[in-house]
Amino acid sequence: MLVQKFGGTSVKSIARIKNVASIAARAAAEEPVVMVVSAMGDTTDYLMKIARQTSLQPNRRELDALLATGEQISIALVAMALNELGARAISLTGAQIGITTESVHTAARIVDIKTDRILGYLKDGFIVVAAGFQGATKDGDVTTLGRGGSDTTAVALAAAVEADACDIYTDVNGVYTADPNIVSTARLLKEISYEEMLEMARVGAQVLHPRAVELARKHHIKVRVRNTFNPEHEGTILLGAEEMEIYRPVGGVTIDRDQARLAILKVPDRPGVAGDVFGALAERRVSVDMIIQAFHQDGSVNDITFTVRRGDLDTARLALEDVESRIGAQGIIADRDVAKLSIVGAGLMDQPDIAARMFTALGRAGINIKMISTSDIRISCAISDGDAERAVKLVHDLFHLDDEQEF
Amino acid sequence: MLVQKFGGTSVKSIARIKNVASIAARAAAEEPVVMVVSAMGDTTDYLMKIARQTSLQPNRRELDALLATGEQISIALVAMALNELGARAISLTGAQIGITTESVHTAARIVDIKTDRILGYLKDGFIVVAAGFQGATKDGDVTTLGRGGSDTTAVALAAAVEADACDIYTDVNGVYTADPNIVSTARLLKEISYEEMLEMARVGAQVLHPRAVELARKHHIKVRVRNTFNPEHEGTILLGAEEMEIYRPVGGVTIDRDQARLAILKVPDRPGVAGDVFGALAERRVSVDMIIQAFHQDGSVNDITFTVRRGDLDTARLALEDVESRIGAQGIIADRDVAKLSIVGAGLMDQPDIAARMFTALGRAGINIKMISTSDIRISCAISDGDAERAVKLVHDLFHLDDEQEF
Repeated sequence: MLVQKFGGTSVKSIARIKNVASIAARAAAEEPVVMVVSAMGDTTDYLMKIARQTSLQPNRRELDALLATGEQISIALVAMALNELGARAISLTGAQIGITTESVHTAARIVDIKTDRILGYLKDGFIVVAAGFQGATKDGDVTTLGRGGSDTTAVALAAAVEADACDIYTDVNGVYTADPNIVSTARLLKEISYEEMLEMARVGAQVLHPRAVELARKHHIKVRVRNTFNPEHEGTILLGAEEMEIYRPVGGVTIDRDQARLAILKVPDRPGVAGDVFGALAERRVSVDMIIQAFHQDGSVNDITFTVRRGDLDTARLALEDVESRIGAQGIIADRDVAKLSIVGAGLMDQPDIAARMFTALGRAGINIKMISTSDIRISCAISDGDAERAVKLVHDLFHLDDEQEF
Repeated sequence: MLVQKFGGTSVKSIARIKNVASIAARAAAEEPVVMVVSAMGDTTDYLMKIARQTSLQPNRRELDALLATGEQISIALVAMALNELGARAISLTGAQIGITTESVHTAARIVDIKTDRILGYLKDGFIVVAAGFQGATKDGDVTTLGRGGSDTTAVALAAAVEADACDIYTDVNGVYTADPNIVSTARLLKEISYEEMLEMARVGAQVLHPRAVELARKHHIKVRVRNTFNPEHEGTILLGAEEMEIYRPVGGVTIDRDQARLAILKVPDRPGVAGDVFGALAERRVSVDMIIQAFHQDGSVNDITFTVRRGDLDTARLALEDVESRIGAQGIIADRDVAKLSIVGAGLMDQPDIAARMFTALGRAGINIKMISTSDIRISCAISDGDAERAVKLVHDLFHLDDEQEF
């Protein structure tokens, strides 16, 4: 049994809907297929827009009812397109499948999935076309799953029906060692571990939402990232690290060019001040990424430096100005053009020289490292956005990521 | 308890959605309100278009799933707009209400309506915003009710919850004695009987679908036709003929300018030939309106004359050409520009001179009557389309329809 998920760009037009129908029909000749489909192109954005025109703060239950129509439209059209190809197909909404969620609107979590209706249709030879992104409360109110919702639906359905694989169709061939638009020698990864994928997705390689990757790791679902517009390509397979054939210390390099840096200076060194600073940011709904707290020369104060999305910079600066005098800090520095360069690899923790090699190479090339943060399988540096492309190419070359054999 | 139905033009834009929300919120200050809402403006036409682009003959189950999203969008927005006005409101789809229909797609009839969910919300002070035009089979598949579906939903819900009245909001003040665009002295009818309304709707005054009128008559629902854009106006009330205060032989005059006339000549007078003629038309899905069969001078043959929608004329002529030689007829005549003039009145059958007065007046004005057909409460004549406006004004004056007192 196979689950195939198609995102919004894959079903953006009627022509593309016919394309995904033909991909599913071909697969269904081999094994039973459950499709999970997102709303067409910008439909969700359009529905959000008319909701905001109707109400300054749209009722969340009604917003979910509204947004869910986006997938209902696309699944009905995909089922029609499959019929047109001579395949048997049936569309099912989240509520019709029996995807039960919490009674939390616009960001519900899945509580239970009934499989009898899906399995019944599969047994009768139907391709099931399931709506992504949505479910229903046990009272029958429509809910949506929030960010990464359709990816999550696909992996959750794959787990529920015990599918052999879950194919996530996007508009690229799979996961690359770096962005091919920046690094011409970037190589497609045949395999990647769930953990590496999590770090890749978080730092900018937006092919599969981290929430879905977590779920795939938990249920051990074989997820394949594939290209809707090049369906013959085998793509990238997500596996547990222990199952991977090839084990490289550095799997890929990513760049996130949507960062800005802020520092609040000479923050008195007493308990609770960091909470004041980041509390003020949270109140204004600013997400913070890298954080560094460094002792100032003068021992009784600290400088706190962090990065945010570039669009949040002005809001974040206002938040800092609010707390500055209250906590007795002295000065705020803002740096609008920052990029975050990261290397990701399941083997990073075993090879402590990797970080040093990267920092040395960047320094020799005159690229200034403004901040560093690390996880078990990732090393990130904040650099000037103007250095971004050059730095990615440099690091890609440094670790020979273009070379299949070298590791 | 009050049911208010708002059609597609009443919710065409966000501004109009806010308008209907304010109408409902005002009414809800007096009594519990159930709104029934159609899809916004041309949404249904747009969804039909993309369905046809996807499949030459869209699967009817999927077409229903697709079309039903139109009302789901409008009810969610109306509920949001009510919230914005400070009213409590909840949107419910046909399936969520528990409107069970036959398992027939695109033209299902309502089998059962559950009222517990609606009544529960009303008791808790909510305005219920119900989706028109749709229901669900007992297996939970979405169905639509076909033509006049939202009107039918409104009247059926009014019957189910035992509402005191069902207000049908349109873009006119109510039902007039004639089209005010043609007859400047046309007068708004305060009351009209179900039977007269049926004849009015069928012959061209498109404010309320005959299917809904039949249902209102059956359940004796007090239906009011009102103006969304002039909600202070009290509109026209539909009642049983026995309840009407004023009883006029002629209630109104209507004109249907979308007619064409065909005749097939010298049809041999033997059993089955009429069946051959109209069977050929039905096969090509041509609806026939007025029919006359007249003996030709030569006693063994008949001329069969009938009217069709103007757009069906060429198809109808082809159908006649197909049967002409087969049944031994000789000649086909087509007349593209025909209008059907009708007078409607519950008292027509009691006053046989009415028809004679109408025919005489038309004759004196040089307006040629090409065909005549009658029912218990309607007399229709086919005339030249060029005479249409003059004829309506003439008949409106003849029966003093502008005068409230004259009857």
